[in-house]
Amino acid sequence: MHFSFFSRTFALSICFYRMLQAEEAQTLINHRLNALCYPLAPNGLYEPIKYVLGLGGKRIRPVFALLACNLFSDEVKTAIEPALGLEIFHNFTLLHDDIMDKAEIRRGQVTVHKKWCDNVAILSGDAMQIDAYRHIGHSPEAQLKQIFDLFSQTAMEVCEGQQYDMDFEHRDDVTLDDYIEMIRLKTAVLLACSLKIGAWIGGATEKDAQLLYDFGINLGLAFQLQDDLLDVFGDADKFGKNIGGDILCNKKTFLLISALKLAKGETKTELTHWLTTNSASHSDKIAAVTRIYNELNVKSLCQKEMENYYHKAFAAFNSLSCAKSRTNIICQYANDLLCRES
Amino acid sequence: MHFSFFSRTFALSICFYRMLQAEEAQTLINHRLNALCYPLAPNGLYEPIKYVLGLGGKRIRPVFALLACNLFSDEVKTAIEPALGLEIFHNFTLLHDDIMDKAEIRRGQVTVHKKWCDNVAILSGDAMQIDAYRHIGHSPEAQLKQIFDLFSQTAMEVCEGQQYDMDFEHRDDVTLDDYIEMIRLKTAVLLACSLKIGAWIGGATEKDAQLLYDFGINLGLAFQLQDDLLDVFGDADKFGKNIGGDILCNKKTFLLISALKLAKGETKTELTHWLTTNSASHSDKIAAVTRIYNELNVKSLCQKEMENYYHKAFAAFNSLSCAKSRTNIICQYANDLLCRES
Repeated sequence: MHFSFFSRTFALSICFYRMLQAEEAQTLINHRLNALCYPLAPNGLYEPIKYVLGLGGKRIRPVFALLACNLFSDEVKTAIEPALGLEIFHNFTLLHDDIMDKAEIRRGQVTVHKKWCDNVAILSGDAMQIDAYRHIGHSPEAQLKQIFDLFSQTAMEVCEGQQYDMDFEHRDDVTLDDYIEMIRLKTAVLLACSLKIGAWIGGATEKDAQLLYDFGINLGLAFQLQDDLLDVFGDADKFGKNIGGDILCNKKTFLLISALKLAKGETKTELTHWLTTNSASHSDKIAAVTRIYNELNVKSLCQKEMENYYHKAFAAFNSLSCAKSRTNIICQYANDLLCRES
Repeated sequence: MHFSFFSRTFALSICFYRMLQAEEAQTLINHRLNALCYPLAPNGLYEPIKYVLGLGGKRIRPVFALLACNLFSDEVKTAIEPALGLEIFHNFTLLHDDIMDKAEIRRGQVTVHKKWCDNVAILSGDAMQIDAYRHIGHSPEAQLKQIFDLFSQTAMEVCEGQQYDMDFEHRDDVTLDDYIEMIRLKTAVLLACSLKIGAWIGGATEKDAQLLYDFGINLGLAFQLQDDLLDVFGDADKFGKNIGGDILCNKKTFLLISALKLAKGETKTELTHWLTTNSASHSDKIAAVTRIYNELNVKSLCQKEMENYYHKAFAAFNSLSCAKSRTNIICQYANDLLCRES
């Protein structure tokens, strides 16, 4: 979508008065993120924040917040500030996770701790977390307390998820249930929180807000399982990251945990070999582990689990009390995300 | 002060109904910090938080919050939760600062990033910041918005102060004004914020709340200048840290910036030598730089500046509208802190 600044401003102003399309919500969020004003000094604190927020991304969380609000209200204006807070918080977690994972690339660009240094990444991340809260603080005052409490609970859960994720690296007894609980905390709760906050601001009943939360949890789990699949079976040209990254670092995804559970005899020996060898080439390891995954059929197990969460998500969604004419956009958006290849 | 759990609980319950002594406020805060319940899992996230909060400290910020509240109200109960949030936030900043400074010891114990690792220290610090906000969120609901906004603004200023402090390490043009602005942000604003939040909760007028904020800023500046003095001229047995730490790492304190400004000729050459040499013993460097400080009389310059802020602090404090009978405790507490040797 290309239009001049003036026509865009016009488009953004009229879009408050009809159902917002997902793409418009994303454009609106990007526009507002680009327009955020940070102080010029100290440069070392604010420059990395602008850099991270400028890297792009699908803006899934704030888009869901606005669309959820729009399910119950024609007016989404008051949901924009908390929606920005949710996106800034998400980007803060990526920034600190990248330090912890020693990741060098994020969205095709060099990560903050590589471009500057660890200290700058730690401190500007801290400042982003405060900034996220600052935007949450601009929620409608009558709802501030409940939004604030849900956001804080969610933020703490995301930290718990990240801690479990790090713990799993050193554990060899991680079960599928452990994994699902970890991704629920690390990924799904923030999506669910975004939907619930949007719903609250739109004036949803507590029952509808909770249904959207459940929708978000199950959708978030499905998204993460899809990410795990794409990381192994995706199309390198479309995925945007190198295929096989999870295999190379022995990441305990749904696929690997399932394979470790199912592999017997020679296959087990071979899988264990690839998990412990340091001498193999990257492409050999990826090819060999992918072959074992295919042999054990873990791809279809993962797809089945994904579908299971997809159905749970839409069971909740379809119980919403709002008119079907209002639910199409969010429904289509969730489906598009689940059919994505990147 | 030693008493059994039951008598302490009794003491804590009666203390809400009369003027709270500073020592009682500290005991109350310690009692509440010790009683905080964190989930058992994930252990790697919550254990470091309990460790940090268990290291002790003077609890100056929450004590000031309670005493400020008590200036205007006999009831300080509703100020306790935000007071805890202020202390948890302060301890979060110490935790992350220790990673950035590669500090090995904090309050006589090994720092979190040394006891565990950098990743654990980063993530548990992030969780502490959320936890701080969570406690702030338990402020009286009618005042939540203004408390939340001041806290967020203050938290961001503390990050700015830390960034300037790190920037100063690599700059050789730091002026005394730059330094004062840095310590205002890094240290004084959180003290001022604590006093103002306490005053608000106690029901102070906006004018009195702002006077207490100004009191806090100037007191905070005086405290930091005193810290700079103690680091060089303190009594090692009482100071609790090694004397001369700032000199060893060429920290641009009020003393060093003044000395660099005043030193001429041979003294300048000698000072520059000690700032650039890597071969001297620690004790030689500390002795030599301290001698130069004495020669240039920077100690009394720093004391004069400290007194200047002390007088500004009490000019604001003495303009408060509350009865003199209520102001004695906080006045005495501030004076005791300024006469401290550790």
